[in-house]
Amino acid sequence: MRSDGRRFDETRAVTMTPNYIKHAEGSVLIEVGDTKVICTASIEEKVPPFMKGQGRGWINAEYSMLPRATQVRNQREATKGKIGGRTMEIQRLIGRALRSVVSLETLGERTITIDCDVIQADGGTRTTSITGSFVALCFAIQKLMRDQKLTKSPITDYLASVSVGIVKDETCLDLNYEEDSQAKVDMNVVMTGQGKFVEVQGTGEEAPFSREELNELLAVAEQGIQSMIAKQKEILGPLNAVVGTEANAHAAKR
Amino acid sequence: MRSDGRRFDETRAVTMTPNYIKHAEGSVLIEVGDTKVICTASIEEKVPPFMKGQGRGWINAEYSMLPRATQVRNQREATKGKIGGRTMEIQRLIGRALRSVVSLETLGERTITIDCDVIQADGGTRTTSITGSFVALCFAIQKLMRDQKLTKSPITDYLASVSVGIVKDETCLDLNYEEDSQAKVDMNVVMTGQGKFVEVQGTGEEAPFSREELNELLAVAEQGIQSMIAKQKEILGPLNAVVGTEANAHAAKR
Amino acid sequence: MRSDGRRFDETRAVTMTPNYIKHAEGSVLIEVGDTKVICTASIEEKVPPFMKGQGRGWINAEYSMLPRATQVRNQREATKGKIGGRTMEIQRLIGRALRSVVSLETLGERTITIDCDVIQADGGTRTTSITGSFVALCFAIQKLMRDQKLTKSPITDYLASVSVGIVKDETCLDLNYEEDSQAKVDMNVVMTGQGKFVEVQGTGEEAPFSREELNELLAVAEQGIQSMIAKQKEILGPLNAVVGTEANAHAAKR
Amino acid sequence: MRSDGRRFDETRAVTMTPNYIKHAEGSVLIEVGDTKVICTASIEEKVPPFMKGQGRGWINAEYSMLPRATQVRNQREATKGKIGGRTMEIQRLIGRALRSVVSLETLGERTITIDCDVIQADGGTRTTSITGSFVALCFAIQKLMRDQKLTKSPITDYLASVSVGIVKDETCLDLNYEEDSQAKVDMNVVMTGQGKFVEVQGTGEEAPFSREELNELLAVAEQGIQSMIAKQKEILGPLNAVVGTEANAHAAKR
Amino acid sequence: MRSDGRRFDETRAVTMTPNYIKHAEGSVLIEVGDTKVICTASIEEKVPPFMKGQGRGWINAEYSMLPRATQVRNQREATKGKIGGRTMEIQRLIGRALRSVVSLETLGERTITIDCDVIQADGGTRTTSITGSFVALCFAIQKLMRDQKLTKSPITDYLASVSVGIVKDETCLDLNYEEDSQAKVDMNVVMTGQGKFVEVQGTGEEAPFSREELNELLAVAEQGIQSMIAKQKEILGPLNAVVGTEANAHAAKR
Amino acid sequence: MRSDGRRFDETRAVTMTPNYIKHAEGSVLIEVGDTKVICTASIEEKVPPFMKGQGRGWINAEYSMLPRATQVRNQREATKGKIGGRTMEIQRLIGRALRSVVSLETLGERTITIDCDVIQADGGTRTTSITGSFVALCFAIQKLMRDQKLTKSPITDYLASVSVGIVKDETCLDLNYEEDSQAKVDMNVVMTGQGKFVEVQGTGEEAPFSREELNELLAVAEQGIQSMIAKQKEILGPLNAVVGTEANAHAAKR
Repeated sequence: MRSDGRRFDETRAVTMTPNYIKHAEGSVLIEVGDTKVICTASIEEKVPPFMKGQGRGWINAEYSMLPRATQVRNQREATKGKIGGRTMEIQRLIGRALRSVVSLETLGERTITIDCDVIQADGGTRTTSITGSFVALCFAIQKLMRDQKLTKSPITDYLASVSVGIVKDETCLDLNYEEDSQAKVDMNVVMTGQGKFVEVQGTGEEAPFSREELNELLAVAEQGIQSMIAKQKEILGPLNAVVGTEANAHAAKR
Repeated sequence: MRSDGRRFDETRAVTMTPNYIKHAEGSVLIEVGDTKVICTASIEEKVPPFMKGQGRGWINAEYSMLPRATQVRNQREATKGKIGGRTMEIQRLIGRALRSVVSLETLGERTITIDCDVIQADGGTRTTSITGSFVALCFAIQKLMRDQKLTKSPITDYLASVSVGIVKDETCLDLNYEEDSQAKVDMNVVMTGQGKFVEVQGTGEEAPFSREELNELLAVAEQGIQSMIAKQKEILGPLNAVVGTEANAHAAKR
Repeated sequence: MRSDGRRFDETRAVTMTPNYIKHAEGSVLIEVGDTKVICTASIEEKVPPFMKGQGRGWINAEYSMLPRATQVRNQREATKGKIGGRTMEIQRLIGRALRSVVSLETLGERTITIDCDVIQADGGTRTTSITGSFVALCFAIQKLMRDQKLTKSPITDYLASVSVGIVKDETCLDLNYEEDSQAKVDMNVVMTGQGKFVEVQGTGEEAPFSREELNELLAVAEQGIQSMIAKQKEILGPLNAVVGTEANAHAAKR
Repeated sequence: MRSDGRRFDETRAVTMTPNYIKHAEGSVLIEVGDTKVICTASIEEKVPPFMKGQGRGWINAEYSMLPRATQVRNQREATKGKIGGRTMEIQRLIGRALRSVVSLETLGERTITIDCDVIQADGGTRTTSITGSFVALCFAIQKLMRDQKLTKSPITDYLASVSVGIVKDETCLDLNYEEDSQAKVDMNVVMTGQGKFVEVQGTGEEAPFSREELNELLAVAEQGIQSMIAKQKEILGPLNAVVGTEANAHAAKR
Repeated sequence: MRSDGRRFDETRAVTMTPNYIKHAEGSVLIEVGDTKVICTASIEEKVPPFMKGQGRGWINAEYSMLPRATQVRNQREATKGKIGGRTMEIQRLIGRALRSVVSLETLGERTITIDCDVIQADGGTRTTSITGSFVALCFAIQKLMRDQKLTKSPITDYLASVSVGIVKDETCLDLNYEEDSQAKVDMNVVMTGQGKFVEVQGTGEEAPFSREELNELLAVAEQGIQSMIAKQKEILGPLNAVVGTEANAHAAKR
Repeated sequence: MRSDGRRFDETRAVTMTPNYIKHAEGSVLIEVGDTKVICTASIEEKVPPFMKGQGRGWINAEYSMLPRATQVRNQREATKGKIGGRTMEIQRLIGRALRSVVSLETLGERTITIDCDVIQADGGTRTTSITGSFVALCFAIQKLMRDQKLTKSPITDYLASVSVGIVKDETCLDLNYEEDSQAKVDMNVVMTGQGKFVEVQGTGEEAPFSREELNELLAVAEQGIQSMIAKQKEILGPLNAVVGTEANAHAAKR
């Protein structure tokens, strides 16, 4: 049993509040335990200069934490005048993960910018951001379809993420902050609805890990991700409203 | 009647959700109409270098908007690498306003940093930030008293703020974004519970204004501020829990 | 009587040296007591990108102090690599104030950039900058008319500014540095030749102020501003050379 | 067969020129095919402020590419005024990887800064940097032991890294630039001499990958890493000169 | 004859207004033709961290131009967020030049910061800054002696600077802006009262120059510098008030 | 005799490794004693915006040192977020020097960017960079001629640079780091194959110098530069392959 009473292979409670920000084309407040992230998707009808004229779209992500999302107040990156390495790493990860399940050709020459703002942090902010971002992105795509700017969804599969780790010799799913700071091995996994890996990032800074340990971590992660995707499905409605076919696009418009 | 059905001297609906962020010493989610701001107060047991050894505390404020708090997405200031003039002006205003109702001597050598993060913007974000900040600050002070770090509250009076303006020749209270963008004269007023002015900032960039118009604006503002202070009192409890006397300090501890 | 022998409602000596910088389209060295500011107006025959094609002009202002304008040397903002909050606040104020008395439509698609460089500071640098900027701006407009680029002046009224404050319980006009650092209430007022307010910025960080005090401050400010405008008229010549009518434009060309 | 004639599970030619930079405490020029990186290790007899007084050392890494290391010239990060996300990600990775095989307690209160400067790039610059950094780090440690500042080596195991990927449906070891730009799946693996994982970073931005594919990639990576470690052993001499025991320390001093 | 009627070996009119800025320990407004520079010297009773405890002082210089000192307005370096190469080069030159005639040991552990702010530019701003800076520096030293903080002047010789160049095949002294932009060879020379070189910086970007041309340029420069030093002597009083001997120090105090 | 056994008028050993970086249009590794610099020339078929449409090309230079090129590690300028004054001064010098021997009209509307990266520093890095840059530039020009983009070389003369100085009362050629730090007078000279000066930069911060000393320094420098140019000729082949005439261009293509 874990300090918060969970089983080793159990995620924390997950809540998704859709359309949390009225101005955004897509938005969700996602809560995984005490970790709370506002994810928004903003559509612009243009692409970055280096992509112009290729008929393809682009998805990029930004990530930030409110200064007091954490136990000790963090200085704002705007005040420091630069974005830190951790933030850059996370926002590159989120963008890459989302692009893996979107057909940029089908999206067409437009950019969707994902913003993940962590309101309160208790471990797993990057994985929670990915899971929430996918929902915000789908809402934005649904809006493009309702507005008849897209006749087919560019989304090719569901996508979610969890953290796993080895804490006091136990393989644990969805680490909270306390567990995360004690973990010997720490891994973030991003996976599709079809059960394929999009990102596997495992770090054994404190203690290198064996192939067996890696396999066990991946097995637990897969199970956690599928439970996240189940939650996404509740919010997003039937599969064909999300994953793009022309038929689905018609359905989505109704 | 106004576009959202309000009387000219009527504020929008005001909601304050106390202790919204679990890590902060004081926090509130304040909503004034569709404007939503998370205000937190963070205590540090030290003062900036230039104030050391004077036995006095310091209060400063930071203000930011999530990129998609607005109708069109704004670039993050962290991405630009610098804080804009509007942000600086607002955070200086918030800090100055709060310090006007705090005895820095009574606070002692500690710093309280106020963070105002606008989650959703619909006009009046700076005045809403001030009204919310005062609540977060009081919660942080109450915690210092509960923790017996202070025996007397350094708060000397209530404090709130509203915007007023002249829109289509009408003096309006608490402008929403649409009204704000049409206003000929725009004024932010910060006032104490005793009805004294802390800040009066009126701008007639579109049309200079007369002494009579100024008087009318101030009268409407005063009424709006007293209704905000009434809401603060509901959240903060009886006056003596907020405004510092030694007796109050004892009361606060119970 | 005040420390420098002035009456409470008396400004310091005011001197304006026109055309102080030979390269600028308009320039003045303004001295108010020991506060000295070089104000220049620079014309560019284009507008910022976001204003293109609207047939309107733009006026913006920059403000800076030489490092040794002050009693203790200040680090240059160029060395710090960023512009401070106080500077931003002041330059936004100057730009806003000037735009309130200029018809941007009449100005046409050109930008006038005002530079206010404080050579020596002794209180009231922002109000002195506004009063001087108006003169530099008018000289630049006169040049545009002489060069037949404008047939009508876009200036709609005179504009000047003073500071007022409550120092040792006295309402004082045009505070010098020593008075400013002792003031309980500090107010900057910008007014037109017609006696209308353009900006009213009052701060009671040290002590909130009542409506009666506000009224008295405004009365003293109005009188000070009208004496500043009288000085401007001496430099700029008859009203119709400044305030735009087509007849004036002809007069200006002779 | 691959475009450069290699087998799928074959690395490019590896050369290590020890002590390439005379001023550095440890240095190597490592060449893996046409990828050339200068790695230096610099010792400072102090730790960052947040680590003072804990009796532990620190290792951190910086990474950069010469502007013309690449086919098209890259703007210098110093000219841009900020370090990009890719650079930050890589230098965090290098630092983390090295720390996993160093006992910071044994190192004592000193910092070793690793600099990896890519002179010429042809794929695999981050993995080559890790492999070379380990050598430079060991040379610096050997110097500390020769200088009798350490009596025991803090190095706990060998460490090297390779990239693997799926290119045209083939699992390839040690991708060059051309292969890297065609890869559907791209993975960087860092491993110890004992065959344990320190970092596993796999990305399927172009195409998600299955568990079977992951397993095959890891198998090929392991083989490549062991061949890199064999090269390191040639340069660094017998194991006991590198991996710390008190006996080794004596040996190293002779 | 030159475009402004001067002989080829003639400087423009030189004016020095001493004590131009009341707050500074030393200051001068120097005008060489239409080039006008405010030079101030600010004393701080400490040295930079890397010089602490050596019993020696430091002199450093900063240089800037007002945005409209030039024919076309220049963007402020504070706005750009960084100091340009030309500015850095000039301020390094000014500091180096002044330090060459100051005994840093005699100055003791204090820093004198020289600020050169170009109010109006018409060629030769860096050489004019050096000539003026020396005067401001001497005033600051005289103040230190009057305040009995120094009993002996650390100044070891006079110092001034001029520009010379080859314009339309003529060797010209003290180039104005128009001449400077046509010069094939451009040289700045800094020299002491004893006629020794402190800096010789000649550039033939447009046309390399021979040893004979160099000799002629240096001869003309020397003559110009000695006329500048004659002007400095008029302002600074008899030599022994400037150049330090203990006897002089006594004289300076009277 | 000098500490490294050289005569006072003798340079250190000079080695140039041509085409050191495979991606660059021109490159060389130049070693002068223990000073090692990688110089590359990168061609872009466009010019900076301010030069467009004039039919002329541009050459500019960047200079940097690896952090551990020096005895004590230097912080990267990318990490500091800005380029220091020394770097700016050097890169401006290199660009100016190279442009003095290139016909920008003959070059046509293209930019050649020179990168000088100091791998190891032991005095004379700026002069070594200039000497090496000229070689890299010539290789890039030869490539343009081989590719038939130029029919005539824009190079008008050879170009090289050395440092000279007065160390312990001796005039020394090509100072190493130890000598440089003891020099009373320090001078960098850039000269053409025809023996004309392009840059003369002499500094007597420690001790002003006389005309006689200047003459002696220049004589020694000239001799050193001609020996550098002799080395360049060995690498670059016969003069007519470098200095542009149409006949040479044909020769170069063979």
